[in-house]
Amino acid sequence: MLHTFAPNHYHHTLGSHAPVLTLQPGDRVRTTTVDAAGVDAAGAQVTHGPNPTTGPFAIAGAQPGDTLQVTLHAITPNRPMGWSGTALAANVVEPEAAIYLPRPRKGGDADGLWEVDVAANRATLVGPGSDGSADAAGTRLAGLTLPLAPMIGCFGVAPAGGEAISTATSGQHGGNMDWRGFTAGVVVRFPVFVPGALFFLGDVHARQGHGEIAGTGIEISADVEFSVELLRDRPQPSPAWPQADDGAFLCTVGNARPLEQALQHATTAMAQLLQVKYGLEARSAQTLMGQVVEYEIANVFNPAFSVVCKMPKAVLALLPNPQSH
Amino acid sequence: MLHTFAPNHYHHTLGSHAPVLTLQPGDRVRTTTVDAAGVDAAGAQVTHGPNPTTGPFAIAGAQPGDTLQVTLHAITPNRPMGWSGTALAANVVEPEAAIYLPRPRKGGDADGLWEVDVAANRATLVGPGSDGSADAAGTRLAGLTLPLAPMIGCFGVAPAGGEAISTATSGQHGGNMDWRGFTAGVVVRFPVFVPGALFFLGDVHARQGHGEIAGTGIEISADVEFSVELLRDRPQPSPAWPQADDGAFLCTVGNARPLEQALQHATTAMAQLLQVKYGLEARSAQTLMGQVVEYEIANVFNPAFSVVCKMPKAVLALLPNPQSH
Amino acid sequence: MLHTFAPNHYHHTLGSHAPVLTLQPGDRVRTTTVDAAGVDAAGAQVTHGPNPTTGPFAIAGAQPGDTLQVTLHAITPNRPMGWSGTALAANVVEPEAAIYLPRPRKGGDADGLWEVDVAANRATLVGPGSDGSADAAGTRLAGLTLPLAPMIGCFGVAPAGGEAISTATSGQHGGNMDWRGFTAGVVVRFPVFVPGALFFLGDVHARQGHGEIAGTGIEISADVEFSVELLRDRPQPSPAWPQADDGAFLCTVGNARPLEQALQHATTAMAQLLQVKYGLEARSAQTLMGQVVEYEIANVFNPAFSVVCKMPKAVLALLPNPQSH
Amino acid sequence: MLHTFAPNHYHHTLGSHAPVLTLQPGDRVRTTTVDAAGVDAAGAQVTHGPNPTTGPFAIAGAQPGDTLQVTLHAITPNRPMGWSGTALAANVVEPEAAIYLPRPRKGGDADGLWEVDVAANRATLVGPGSDGSADAAGTRLAGLTLPLAPMIGCFGVAPAGGEAISTATSGQHGGNMDWRGFTAGVVVRFPVFVPGALFFLGDVHARQGHGEIAGTGIEISADVEFSVELLRDRPQPSPAWPQADDGAFLCTVGNARPLEQALQHATTAMAQLLQVKYGLEARSAQTLMGQVVEYEIANVFNPAFSVVCKMPKAVLALLPNPQSH
Repeated sequence: MLHTFAPNHYHHTLGSHAPVLTLQPGDRVRTTTVDAAGVDAAGAQVTHGPNPTTGPFAIAGAQPGDTLQVTLHAITPNRPMGWSGTALAANVVEPEAAIYLPRPRKGGDADGLWEVDVAANRATLVGPGSDGSADAAGTRLAGLTLPLAPMIGCFGVAPAGGEAISTATSGQHGGNMDWRGFTAGVVVRFPVFVPGALFFLGDVHARQGHGEIAGTGIEISADVEFSVELLRDRPQPSPAWPQADDGAFLCTVGNARPLEQALQHATTAMAQLLQVKYGLEARSAQTLMGQVVEYEIANVFNPAFSVVCKMPKAVLALLPNPQSH
Repeated sequence: MLHTFAPNHYHHTLGSHAPVLTLQPGDRVRTTTVDAAGVDAAGAQVTHGPNPTTGPFAIAGAQPGDTLQVTLHAITPNRPMGWSGTALAANVVEPEAAIYLPRPRKGGDADGLWEVDVAANRATLVGPGSDGSADAAGTRLAGLTLPLAPMIGCFGVAPAGGEAISTATSGQHGGNMDWRGFTAGVVVRFPVFVPGALFFLGDVHARQGHGEIAGTGIEISADVEFSVELLRDRPQPSPAWPQADDGAFLCTVGNARPLEQALQHATTAMAQLLQVKYGLEARSAQTLMGQVVEYEIANVFNPAFSVVCKMPKAVLALLPNPQSH
Repeated sequence: MLHTFAPNHYHHTLGSHAPVLTLQPGDRVRTTTVDAAGVDAAGAQVTHGPNPTTGPFAIAGAQPGDTLQVTLHAITPNRPMGWSGTALAANVVEPEAAIYLPRPRKGGDADGLWEVDVAANRATLVGPGSDGSADAAGTRLAGLTLPLAPMIGCFGVAPAGGEAISTATSGQHGGNMDWRGFTAGVVVRFPVFVPGALFFLGDVHARQGHGEIAGTGIEISADVEFSVELLRDRPQPSPAWPQADDGAFLCTVGNARPLEQALQHATTAMAQLLQVKYGLEARSAQTLMGQVVEYEIANVFNPAFSVVCKMPKAVLALLPNPQSH
Repeated sequence: MLHTFAPNHYHHTLGSHAPVLTLQPGDRVRTTTVDAAGVDAAGAQVTHGPNPTTGPFAIAGAQPGDTLQVTLHAITPNRPMGWSGTALAANVVEPEAAIYLPRPRKGGDADGLWEVDVAANRATLVGPGSDGSADAAGTRLAGLTLPLAPMIGCFGVAPAGGEAISTATSGQHGGNMDWRGFTAGVVVRFPVFVPGALFFLGDVHARQGHGEIAGTGIEISADVEFSVELLRDRPQPSPAWPQADDGAFLCTVGNARPLEQALQHATTAMAQLLQVKYGLEARSAQTLMGQVVEYEIANVFNPAFSVVCKMPKAVLALLPNPQSH
């Protein structure tokens, strides 16, 4: 069944909030998200930041220990203007270099403004922030045009233990992972921690570099279409973390600080996944991972960083007698 | 001029050791490297590990503040057998998961053995270590075949300040960076810290995943061919770190622990490079980097980790009036 | 006014839960806490772990931006038996050493049991866990007697932004800081994020080493007596973190991972405090801190670590014209 | 035998340099150290920074695997003026706060100057740097007087593997640990990695806070008196790290980045020491450490940070049948 859902309120934590809609496994939803600052398709400030999320959508029958599988069918910016940071985050440069970073201006930063043309699939830098003043981003780079690569920055489910966790950060439940790999066509899996799973989504970026090192992608509101399935093929890897499948790679996502811990979670989850779902013994999984995995630094800016461990599906296909997934 | 150099001794530190040969800028060298444990093409143990290096090669006229540019023309495994670790490094899994890692055996670990067929461009896992005993790596994965992707694990120049730094680790001078991106065809730049630069190389891997998470690639001896150039186009980015150009990406390499610091060095070096060599103002460089850079985790195993910051050259070509490099 | 409050339910998140009592500034409360596993003074399992908290207590008139000052008058274990971990946490030893840590037993760990004698002010190790089996902790160390030093492990206020944060971790709102310095006699200050502040407390330890490196102190239920004051002496240091005053030291607490970030928060908070409350210019505060501050690693085990920055009050007394606090 | 040694050259790496003197076990040495910038007792710039060291002193008969025991008898500043940093290091404050740190001045920083009066045991801040300009450190704090607590910042032995390691950093061989606990009266033990051990010392501070967070202590030249012993009571804890005994605490020192890794080394070394030298089983050592160890953050500024794990000797004395040390 296809649902069209127009949100009239947004959440700034992922938690056990009242669902806006209950979906059956297999259902498909068309909805919209506002940008990270709470501005919608019409340019109206409909809520505050950071990262207001649409939802939550309950999935009928979902129970803790299940897996919620979300297929992202379309992520389409729905207005002609996006914005980005124009300074590197203080924590991604050497501490001694941070001393020379631009000091944030009072009354609003000089954000980069980008014209976003979905039909032409491009974003063009048109200048600095709302005060109209020229600065570096508005001069030398003015007119720079980059292809779009729309992605969802913040999505996930209600966490365990009665927590309500800010949409600024992330964890085993997903959240603000800001990985540019969460694009249309990707299948994402979240562990279910509460009855109904309670799925939220928001914070679309028209594009973003690895690491989100300027603190943002090109932030924009969007139309999003997704469908949900419920997986009960236990046992799940433990501890459970978000997974993704983009056709070429099977991915596990770890969300934590420091960066090494995010990598540890993603790596441990992949080793578990290869054992639980592909029948490899522990040492075989480890031998294989050593020579073939790739990593991607999703974000190194949010309170929890995100690292993705990627196993090529072509390699998995080489394994003798793989158990499918 | 083409030199053919057959090493008769190896170094386990990068430091101001006596050069084995003095090269003129433009010279080309064919030489060999032994594997990380000191075993050569004939299978003979000619020195001890870790990571014995061939060299150093002095570059005539090189002075501190110059840049040594090394073009890697060929990296060719020169024996039919390589080896790899078969357990994940304890620091790449969750600490609680490390409790369940296999305990190293006394008298030598059960390394994975790989048949390396250069003509067919493939490595095939043939089993566990020298004791011949079966284990996980020798059963379920036996016969697994992966394409070769030969790379240099450890190379660089003599460091500053009179230091002699172990080939187990890395720094601004290069060293044991273990990045799978250091393949044939890549141009690498090292800051020069001592007169003559003193270039060392060793530790070839037949292939390796991101992060070197099993503690090794497929370790092997190799024939290597490289040429050297001397760049005096000062100012250089400061602080200076190794750079690479693989045709598609301009890369800066940061070597440090923790992972975030390695990323900070690579990011700061890229921001500097865009200003010094491409004429971007600081804020323009930062705005651009935020939406386009990629990162690669080279190794997360050595005493210093290595992170690569990658700027797409196609994007640099879009910049108005780029100053070439 | 003195309130005596007997809890009949407990919270596992610090969040905007319904207050159990509303206090006036100046009020004093006698109440009880259960141990980290939810066991009370009578040895009854009255709730589940981890770290159930008593409360919350609303403070009449408290508004975001105020400071809640809590004086800890008494922290008294109220049963004769406590328990502790008997293995180091996997993250506090070298990763390669973690491989050799004892593997947790199925069906309950072999916890250390301690006889706690409040009158004699001592805890005596009497053996391993509930299964009665002997192990190292029960043999060589059996009979080891240490002085008590009761402290509150987990206390704080409701966080900002609608979050409900697990009592396993900590943040700007306090929480599971597990600092052995939170003893009777200490004055603690928390930033107020929600109307009424909403103060929770739990997880008393009969004693604990620095860092909580075995994952626990000597865990026990307790009688606690505290009083509250409301401070409105704005501006407060920003960002705001918990503070403590033990008579000898003025302390700021930073809660985060990694350890360096916890230290950064505590250090930044102290530098702010010296400026805002003691009238030092930024550089004077920094010059002074460099030669006199002390740090204490409160815990290096919880999801967020805690580091305390300590300024000797005797030094503050030396400052010309100090503004008191 | 008592040697009086007046250095005429200094080393900026700890490595296998030619010894200036060969000592017999039991010998005592009176010598001098210059300050971290290479300025001596007379105010003369006799070498460059950072951290020039006096030595090395060979110890007759010392072999790899032995332990060099150094007793610090006297550390006495030998000139009336010391200097310190006046800004916090960029890495000890929140990254976003680093943006507001003072930018280093060209042509030399405005260092804090301190009058050091050894007879009166005090240091008095007399103002900013050599340019004479007033700044915060010279106004509000002017005249601040603190007690002396002289310590050695940088000392240790030649490292293993042919390395020569900068006196700016530290490792298993010691080096620039900058711990304020290395004072007169303390016994220090270093693992021996090369024949003769090769002991270096330098970088005395008249006092310093925990963490060396302004990048320096009160830097000064000094007269130092020490004696050496050679310990062959193998097995030693492995891996081997520096140890100290100040009468009240038995200490292990870990040197690494990040801070958590430094703590891991110190903790692992202490657990080993309790087993190897005090006969505790692994789990007993761990149970004990959890409730009694203390940590001290020696420095969080140098390339390698230093953390000290401290075991109260009074607790060790409680153990049944301790094996002495």
